[in-house]
Amino acid sequence: MSHRIDGLQYANWSEKIFRQMRAGGVDAVHVTIAYHENFRETVLNIEAWNRRFEAFPDLIFQGRTGDDVRRAKAEGRTAIFFGFQNPSPIEDDIGLVEIVHTLGARFMQLSYNNQSLLATGCYEAEDPGLTRMGREVIGEMNRVGLVVDMSHSAERSTLEAIEHSARPIAVTHANPAFWAPARRNKSDAVIRALAETGGMLGFSLYPHHLRDKSDCTLESFCEMIARTADMVGPHCLGIGSDLCQDHPDSVVDWMRMGRWTKRVDYGEGSAAAPGFPDMPAWFEDNRHFPNIEAGLRAVGFDAAEVAAIMGENWLRFFDTSFGAAGEAGLRAAAE
Amino acid sequence: MSHRIDGLQYANWSEKIFRQMRAGGVDAVHVTIAYHENFRETVLNIEAWNRRFEAFPDLIFQGRTGDDVRRAKAEGRTAIFFGFQNPSPIEDDIGLVEIVHTLGARFMQLSYNNQSLLATGCYEAEDPGLTRMGREVIGEMNRVGLVVDMSHSAERSTLEAIEHSARPIAVTHANPAFWAPARRNKSDAVIRALAETGGMLGFSLYPHHLRDKSDCTLESFCEMIARTADMVGPHCLGIGSDLCQDHPDSVVDWMRMGRWTKRVDYGEGSAAAPGFPDMPAWFEDNRHFPNIEAGLRAVGFDAAEVAAIMGENWLRFFDTSFGAAGEAGLRAAAE
Repeated sequence: MSHRIDGLQYANWSEKIFRQMRAGGVDAVHVTIAYHENFRETVLNIEAWNRRFEAFPDLIFQGRTGDDVRRAKAEGRTAIFFGFQNPSPIEDDIGLVEIVHTLGARFMQLSYNNQSLLATGCYEAEDPGLTRMGREVIGEMNRVGLVVDMSHSAERSTLEAIEHSARPIAVTHANPAFWAPARRNKSDAVIRALAETGGMLGFSLYPHHLRDKSDCTLESFCEMIARTADMVGPHCLGIGSDLCQDHPDSVVDWMRMGRWTKRVDYGEGSAAAPGFPDMPAWFEDNRHFPNIEAGLRAVGFDAAEVAAIMGENWLRFFDTSFGAAGEAGLRAAAE
Repeated sequence: MSHRIDGLQYANWSEKIFRQMRAGGVDAVHVTIAYHENFRETVLNIEAWNRRFEAFPDLIFQGRTGDDVRRAKAEGRTAIFFGFQNPSPIEDDIGLVEIVHTLGARFMQLSYNNQSLLATGCYEAEDPGLTRMGREVIGEMNRVGLVVDMSHSAERSTLEAIEHSARPIAVTHANPAFWAPARRNKSDAVIRALAETGGMLGFSLYPHHLRDKSDCTLESFCEMIARTADMVGPHCLGIGSDLCQDHPDSVVDWMRMGRWTKRVDYGEGSAAAPGFPDMPAWFEDNRHFPNIEAGLRAVGFDAAEVAAIMGENWLRFFDTSFGAAGEAGLRAAAE
């Protein structure tokens, strides 16, 4: 039996959503626990997850390794893996990289939309690539097994991260720009560099990353995946739905504006449509993963390829990425 | 009677040093209270200053306005003005700009040696200029009366800060690169842009910024000031000694490495000379300000020019820079 893994979600977490994960057969989800939170605020968010794990042990538990995904499937639960969309949780302190990994973080974006201390976000006018601290922090992330995620980063920073990182990196949630030329989507150069280095691309269902946005068809989405597989093969591809379920629009304001401006920044939205966009009708929540599976079959992927894209690729990546450098995980990656 | 003001010091503060300030006739000093400290740590440093103000009320008090310099002179004390060498005290929060100003901060560098959330430091390989947050924060600093200081910033970021800021900015402690081509020293373009916009340049006595370093002569230093005055006139010039007195070398490690790397970074030093350099014999502490005054006379400045460079220029800048935009201070600047 294959595993179903979502490479990124950020929902207004509730028992309802955890039950939907089970209904959709989702064995593991990488959940965002920080957009702009500093270390202490991130710890508060972990505390909130600890309360959820305590309250719903029959539905969810904290995942730390690839084997936890297998355990989740065997036990009929969903493994929850922590990640950050910004390096804000490590503040200016490289020593916090190991601390957050010990607390369970498995992915960290080097930047969100703006310049960070490490790299450049896709909304800056210029991208000078990795900073001095960025290079140091990647080395430390490689050492402890915290995956570099460049989903929101700008082109040059992303290419430099792929090159500088000794271990494969991820773009957990974005689509190819050839299909939908949004600022957040990725160039062919980035996708090829990711694939050539063992990295992963998680396809996003967030409407601002979709061709025709909320009106995007399942067929168009799956055709995009097929074209990407034509380019780089199917084994670096997964899903990173970017499902932002049940949130009030104040949450998208926090994602876009954090504390960096006193003015309104619409990010991917606009004054006319400032809030969260409607999800496509064929992917409204975790129960709809089987739709994607069917869509992938319909555009010509075989069963093994569908299984790979729906989770086995992520599982292989989890197996080799989350352990310390030099441990079994990294040795496996080198074999 | 003219006023003597030092545009930057960072010493291991003690009664001895405060008595040396009095012996040197120093009416006001801009003191660094943060290199890499976050907000809470900066507040601890303010608390430490509050204890000093309480312990030595006959020697020092906290300065907040230009008039506090006049009061210091009248009362035979030294007014201490707070500043940051990095934006780390405001973390990622534009709302902290007003908070730190209320607590007494009057200068903030937009970066130290590395990339910050706002601008680029002079040790980065590339300088993309002000970030999105940098532009927002400058607007807020202009509003409340917190001076933009670009002493450690890279060229393009510095020029963009001068252009973007609605109020004059400062380079509190650096020298012209034409005299000593250190990475920290400033190009003619920066010095001219500063002067044309009412900004200030504070000449540094830190040996790494000096021609011949610790062996620099007083005459060479004062000739450098004369050549700068030839270029832009004497009214944008002051002293920013960068006096780092009585510190153990562990402090220069903190300045250079903060928490951003696990390796050794020598900054302006080297493996052969990693510690604080020796100050020139003619400027070892605050008691030696009269040496500079004599040196300036010796290279041909008249008494009024010497008074301007030794403190009157800074006092005029303090008068117009530390109040909220639209208040008397800013109106005075526009007159």
